[in-house]
Amino acid sequence: MIDISFSGKTRRVGLVRVMTQEEQRLIDEQGRLIERLFPAIKVTSKCIENQPRGIYDAETERIAEPKIVRVAKDLEREGGEAVIISCAADPALGIAREELRIPVIGTGSATAAVAVSLGQAIGVIGIGEGVPEPMAEILGDRLVSYEKIEGVQTALDLHLESAKEQALQAVKNLVSRNRVEVVAFGCTGLSTLDVDDPIQREFGVYTVNPVIASGIQVLYALMRKRVGGQGEDHTE
Amino acid sequence: MIDISFSGKTRRVGLVRVMTQEEQRLIDEQGRLIERLFPAIKVTSKCIENQPRGIYDAETERIAEPKIVRVAKDLEREGGEAVIISCAADPALGIAREELRIPVIGTGSATAAVAVSLGQAIGVIGIGEGVPEPMAEILGDRLVSYEKIEGVQTALDLHLESAKEQALQAVKNLVSRNRVEVVAFGCTGLSTLDVDDPIQREFGVYTVNPVIASGIQVLYALMRKRVGGQGEDHTE
Repeated sequence: MIDISFSGKTRRVGLVRVMTQEEQRLIDEQGRLIERLFPAIKVTSKCIENQPRGIYDAETERIAEPKIVRVAKDLEREGGEAVIISCAADPALGIAREELRIPVIGTGSATAAVAVSLGQAIGVIGIGEGVPEPMAEILGDRLVSYEKIEGVQTALDLHLESAKEQALQAVKNLVSRNRVEVVAFGCTGLSTLDVDDPIQREFGVYTVNPVIASGIQVLYALMRKRVGGQGEDHTE
Repeated sequence: MIDISFSGKTRRVGLVRVMTQEEQRLIDEQGRLIERLFPAIKVTSKCIENQPRGIYDAETERIAEPKIVRVAKDLEREGGEAVIISCAADPALGIAREELRIPVIGTGSATAAVAVSLGQAIGVIGIGEGVPEPMAEILGDRLVSYEKIEGVQTALDLHLESAKEQALQAVKNLVSRNRVEVVAFGCTGLSTLDVDDPIQREFGVYTVNPVIASGIQVLYALMRKRVGGQGEDHTE
């Protein structure tokens, strides 16, 4: 845990979940992880409507975009000082940055960013057919290999009993065939699967957890807010 | 300031300066910035030998590499839990990672990483002929433009009276010709020039300060240490 505070103040961060869920306890799952690691950050999470299977292809991403911007704006209006869009594909990130006055962090770019800070040989595990585009762009030649987790079609399937075992198997495949220093999670849903420690212990690699990576990048954004044109005060 | 502690413990981080300086007060300048923002981190800084003008081209980078690895190993031996190589070209980063057991962060990749987390249109100011390679690789298409600071040949010249004004002029040139959301510093020496606030205030862009960016990425590395093969305990 990092006991963190901003000169004693609590900072409020909004988090957009791209999978529709009914139970607030589930919607809050990722926000709780950030709050546990950075106790001075208070996270408010909201999910988009009518996408119970989340984002898992180009079409579901397209449909989600305006909903994400709407939720992000709500979170800003309700006092958020930064917003995280919690999806490794960084859906609607550019639009949200244009429409909001506060910093907007996408978990895809934040995850890739932490990965390239930690090592030169990076593997990714995920649920789609390949590495989400914003991650692939940032990883560039540092991306060594991608491994799809078996038996998982959407982030919803990560709640299956077998998902944790399958994720570990994917890492095993990845590291047995390639020399990697870092395993980045290519799906935000993996952040709360509790596989970080087992992977690090068993395979001797760094993991990059998208939710924690986003929390880390939010710290920087909160320290060095955009000012002037965006009308924000610089706070440190 | 971020008041940070790791469950109450102080964490020790080593910092390698690639410019030879005699006065410990100057050698410690960057470390003090990290300690001021993250009071639970204690930084020990050491510089390499016989390079009073630092690294400013391929040849000076080549000569510096074995010295950097030597200093990094010293810092590890003396109890460092992570090491920062403070140069935007990330010299000797790969070798140092192979030879040390603790996380090694390069300020170049850390700076580019924070930049891509904050925005899609990134400008860089620096002292060389172009963007340092590891930064350019990570920024990819997000790199909009580079602006060389006039009148500055080496990081040493950043101590000149005129350097601050020239750095602001470089940003002015950059933002007048391009739409940029983020201005990243392509030289670690700019970190202690105190231009972050004026740039943010005047031009309404985020700045990415290499030393602070490295401090942020070190946080992640300290939370999620590599274990197993590297014999490190996971600590959180």
